Amino acid sequence: MIRRIGVIGGGQLGRMFALEAKRMGFEVVVLDPQEHSPCGQVADEQIVAAYDDMEAIERLGQSTDVVTYEFENIAIASVEYLEQHGYHVTPTSDVLRITQDRLLEKRFVRSCGIATADFAEINRLDDLSEASMSIGFPAILKTARGGYDGKGQWRIQSLDEGRAAFSAAKGAKLIYERVVPFARELSVVATRGANDAVVCYPAGENTHDRGILTMTVAPARISDNARLRARTIATTIGKKLHIVGTYCVELFLLANGELLVNEIAPRPHNSGHYTIDVTQCSQYEQHVRAICDLPLAEPKLESNAIMMNILGAGKGDHLTGEDELLTDPSIVLHMYGKRHAVNRRKMGHFTMLVDGAVDEPAIARAKAAHAKLGWQD
Amino acid sequence: MIRRIGVIGGGQLGRMFALEAKRMGFEVVVLDPQEHSPCGQVADEQIVAAYDDMEAIERLGQSTDVVTYEFENIAIASVEYLEQHGYHVTPTSDVLRITQDRLLEKRFVRSCGIATADFAEINRLDDLSEASMSIGFPAILKTARGGYDGKGQWRIQSLDEGRAAFSAAKGAKLIYERVVPFARELSVVATRGANDAVVCYPAGENTHDRGILTMTVAPARISDNARLRARTIATTIGKKLHIVGTYCVELFLLANGELLVNEIAPRPHNSGHYTIDVTQCSQYEQHVRAICDLPLAEPKLESNAIMMNILGAGKGDHLTGEDELLTDPSIVLHMYGKRHAVNRRKMGHFTMLVDGAVDEPAIARAKAAHAKLGWQD
Repeated sequence: MIRRIGVIGGGQLGRMFALEAKRMGFEVVVLDPQEHSPCGQVADEQIVAAYDDMEAIERLGQSTDVVTYEFENIAIASVEYLEQHGYHVTPTSDVLRITQDRLLEKRFVRSCGIATADFAEINRLDDLSEASMSIGFPAILKTARGGYDGKGQWRIQSLDEGRAAFSAAKGAKLIYERVVPFARELSVVATRGANDAVVCYPAGENTHDRGILTMTVAPARISDNARLRARTIATTIGKKLHIVGTYCVELFLLANGELLVNEIAPRPHNSGHYTIDVTQCSQYEQHVRAICDLPLAEPKLESNAIMMNILGAGKGDHLTGEDELLTDPSIVLHMYGKRHAVNRRKMGHFTMLVDGAVDEPAIARAKAAHAKLGWQD
Repeated sequence: MIRRIGVIGGGQLGRMFALEAKRMGFEVVVLDPQEHSPCGQVADEQIVAAYDDMEAIERLGQSTDVVTYEFENIAIASVEYLEQHGYHVTPTSDVLRITQDRLLEKRFVRSCGIATADFAEINRLDDLSEASMSIGFPAILKTARGGYDGKGQWRIQSLDEGRAAFSAAKGAKLIYERVVPFARELSVVATRGANDAVVCYPAGENTHDRGILTMTVAPARISDNARLRARTIATTIGKKLHIVGTYCVELFLLANGELLVNEIAPRPHNSGHYTIDVTQCSQYEQHVRAICDLPLAEPKLESNAIMMNILGAGKGDHLTGEDELLTDPSIVLHMYGKRHAVNRRKMGHFTMLVDGAVDEPAIARAKAAHAKLGWQD
């Protein structure tokens, strides 16, 4: 019987996971190097240590009944350690290995018979010129490992720009990806249980600004056919990956209706935050259920939603304008307890519940609400 | 600017309040004599001390920006201490004084021009025989102060039974209340802001078993007219009481349509738990908003609901059957992190989301779901 859950990583995803796990009566222990981490603030206990501190990982395993992680940029050795020492950890190191590496991930997606944008592995300058000829421009060079929120990514229009990016990457293995002229950026948040059952939230529609998600509209404004295909893709990926837990598949929808998989996240995802507020069972609760071997819940949207991230501006650590924001009774505010509002840091988000279809006026209302927020010392 | 909230009392009401406050980015410090209290498990800090330990109360005031309490059976001296030493505490000691004492409370309700059942103050055996003649039987004798969940209450059918109860009360001041043959037991959960604005959830319909709430149906199956009158009563009481925060008014609806106020709770209430799961702003978030001087949200039910309490049975501390319970995707489970499932102790609850009207088949479904739960060592 699982009573105590361990989480590697103490950010906002861990925090929202812990809030749901606590609500269900579980105890939560988090491992994070930063004291009073967002998750640590709501957990029963925080082990303050590096993600690859094996002594700390051992303590985490010993003091909990199951261990999970809230983001994929942790040391794979930590997950392997837990597996090798008989601790229950999920998702497995096999899942982590694939999803930590954009090249392995894209090859895996193709091995499932699912399309991605054209890509190539870049280890030397020669690879770059070859890829530029076979794939063309515009393209994006990304570090195969370790980047997130637009970090470690360079958009290139020419071989010269490619060379500059290659040199900026300082020898890191890169992936060269064709920029696809998408009509919509989508994501499907899904959860797979140990019994191979998969539940999916309807595809959401994402807007990014310089690599950082700024807004999700749920459900996405796409055809039923595209929605169904996106769901099938996410289900197939979950099953072939043998992941147990919540995961997210990001896709591009092209003008011709084609869907290309962009990325897999082996964890709850920013684009699924809205599920806390408008479904009976959020992506975080589904993750709790999956890793604790409880039945998953077929998700049901009680309302449509627009989620907007609240990013730091690097000019003051205190949010202002909540009072004005909250005059709109359709808005639900989530703040992560981070002390410093570093520029473009994810500090919180809000969900706007929308009656009926999410249309441009609704999006304009959400943006106007967002504009009321500011930062001060 | 309020960043850190103090709570006197560490039970489940404080826990659900803290979970909402944390979600909104506030820090929470709780004061409770029991280590690892339900609220302490999710708070930033717990001060382990008696509710009337003035040194601890001073520390709570000093380390927070506003103090509130999660139930009314705390020492009034603690609230007065905070008021007298310039700390911001809400609801005030005036509110607490009235709601701690069933006699003051009923007199206050009548002073608002709102009906209650007939009652009398009982200090001596003579008072008892007088009341039995003027009010009659069946009646309930209750301690004027300190009882909850049916404790300190005796139902009496005769003067002899009255005398036995009087002697069991060991000299405590009592209230003699007429038992009214109600058609429904209702409650209106409401919140009043510092600006005198009041928001109300629709009246819920409660079922008790030996003084303990077992089920709430929301909204109550009553006429629109009764619903409106219940709302008006709750609003009037909030305004006249000058309470800032969430409160609950329990009422009896008689067969002839009359509404009688039974009790006021100056805090979030068991019958409002369902608001976490089916409204955009729960009774706990409204309380956060009120005490932090943020605007209240006009509540909107995204779904109807049935809430059922999960009580301990005194035969094992571990809940069983969650896995079966959670096969129903309309059920949301809340557990309070209590270690010992003492007989009839409130250990958790679940909300069942109901499409359309809550009817007898839906209630039967909720009861069947509840029957799947058990306790083991």
